[in-house]
Amino acid sequence: MKDQAKNYFKSLQDQITNSLTEINQQMYKEDTWERAGGGGGVTRIFEGGNLLEKGGVNFSEVYGEFSKEFAKTLPHGNGVQFYATGVSLVLHPTNPFVPTVHANFRYIERGDTGWFGGGADLTPYYLFEEDAKHFHQTYKNTLESFGSDIYPMFKKKCDEYFYLPHRKEARGVGGIFFDYQIENIESKFEMVKACGDSFLESYLPIAKKRMGHEFTEDQKAFQEWRRGRYVEFNLLYDRGTIFGLKTNGRVESILMSFPKHVRWLYDFMPKAGTPEAELQKCLESPRDWV
Amino acid sequence: MKDQAKNYFKSLQDQITNSLTEINQQMYKEDTWERAGGGGGVTRIFEGGNLLEKGGVNFSEVYGEFSKEFAKTLPHGNGVQFYATGVSLVLHPTNPFVPTVHANFRYIERGDTGWFGGGADLTPYYLFEEDAKHFHQTYKNTLESFGSDIYPMFKKKCDEYFYLPHRKEARGVGGIFFDYQIENIESKFEMVKACGDSFLESYLPIAKKRMGHEFTEDQKAFQEWRRGRYVEFNLLYDRGTIFGLKTNGRVESILMSFPKHVRWLYDFMPKAGTPEAELQKCLESPRDWV
Repeated sequence: MKDQAKNYFKSLQDQITNSLTEINQQMYKEDTWERAGGGGGVTRIFEGGNLLEKGGVNFSEVYGEFSKEFAKTLPHGNGVQFYATGVSLVLHPTNPFVPTVHANFRYIERGDTGWFGGGADLTPYYLFEEDAKHFHQTYKNTLESFGSDIYPMFKKKCDEYFYLPHRKEARGVGGIFFDYQIENIESKFEMVKACGDSFLESYLPIAKKRMGHEFTEDQKAFQEWRRGRYVEFNLLYDRGTIFGLKTNGRVESILMSFPKHVRWLYDFMPKAGTPEAELQKCLESPRDWV
Repeated sequence: MKDQAKNYFKSLQDQITNSLTEINQQMYKEDTWERAGGGGGVTRIFEGGNLLEKGGVNFSEVYGEFSKEFAKTLPHGNGVQFYATGVSLVLHPTNPFVPTVHANFRYIERGDTGWFGGGADLTPYYLFEEDAKHFHQTYKNTLESFGSDIYPMFKKKCDEYFYLPHRKEARGVGGIFFDYQIENIESKFEMVKACGDSFLESYLPIAKKRMGHEFTEDQKAFQEWRRGRYVEFNLLYDRGTIFGLKTNGRVESILMSFPKHVRWLYDFMPKAGTPEAELQKCLESPRDWV
């Protein structure tokens, strides 16, 4: 499974970065890096262009030994030997009417046991219900052939995971999230490939529809303020970010997920009745979008 | 001790915010808040003015019950009943040649046992050795009468605490840091008062000297990039921030410590030989400033 997964993730990175280059009308910058403990990766960064203020699409294949403490936290597999390969991406558009998007698909082996994990979620600054619906509908359609119970389950897990308890807010309008897909691994691989191949379909139509929208300085400032929540989530709660930073991961590939411009304001809340307040309201409780 | 400590911290907040209002030529905004579990505080926020892009000086007096998990992590006192009062402040100046400063002085009781903690540290964006020396020398002079071993001990603790392992960088040029000052509590109170009363002397001469310095957009951008480290430190490592956010503290009073404008750039490092590179170099290993 290792090689199949790795080859798929490598091709998924190409598929996604080729399309992004086209729409962004600007090439990414590529960094190939090695990991001291074994393996390495290829990080592709977009900075500037038609669509993206900052965005990264990372492929990695790493292996070696988990720390004993980390190994203990894993419910599957045995020992400390591991192999992990995957794609992760975060895209922060310039235009505040285009949502930020995150996706990650990965295959992990510990000892003789392998599993898939991943997901995709959308973080709008201004709420267009049709965009949230489109994003969710895409993954619902994709997952339908793997069982009609899959999408609702992954949707719920996404709402649970991308939540900021200290703010009592969701990070965004959710999407799908799954981990430890361990049984019938061949079928799970098909499912992950189907999700990965749906990414562009889930996001690009939204980006294309909104990227020409005119915006004001105040709307840009609101986007930068909301982006503070993205940073708070990733540093306080995101398992991958914290694990990576505390275990000598490649800092720049981990924090490529951060927006370029962020602002924190003391005790700011948008005025009632504004589109900004509508977005805040929407983040208070998860909705069924499809 | 409770009342004496509280009264001192309340007056320290006044002393500091009065002087800051004068130099900033703009009044703070004041919020009085109550804590659901017991107690409350007064948060004073500066936004804009001659000196400060954003700054907060917080006084609080809170009491009630620690969670059992948190109580377990404390090496002193018994049970879960607590009382805590203190002042904490973070000042982020507009001008990149003026350093950010943080200070915190607190008195905590758990059961029948009370102790003081606190410190002050300086985070420059451009290094002026004389400023770092002045800051350290002020606290060294202040602490001298409490024993000549105190300043070196507190200086070392500060270097150890304000360190970002994932960046292999200090947060700034340090200062003093201490906790669990439990023996001879009356004498420790004198020491804390002496440190608190030295704060303005440690910082204002630096701020006054640098706040009129001309700066370019690139220098401002460098400051915003460095501020990303401040956010990373506070969310990943700062015990007070993490404890507050994860235990239902008042989010806006905790995150008042965050700068207004922050930026993250992929894999950025200043060019060798520049003042920006000199600052980075300085953060690689702690120096003896006095």
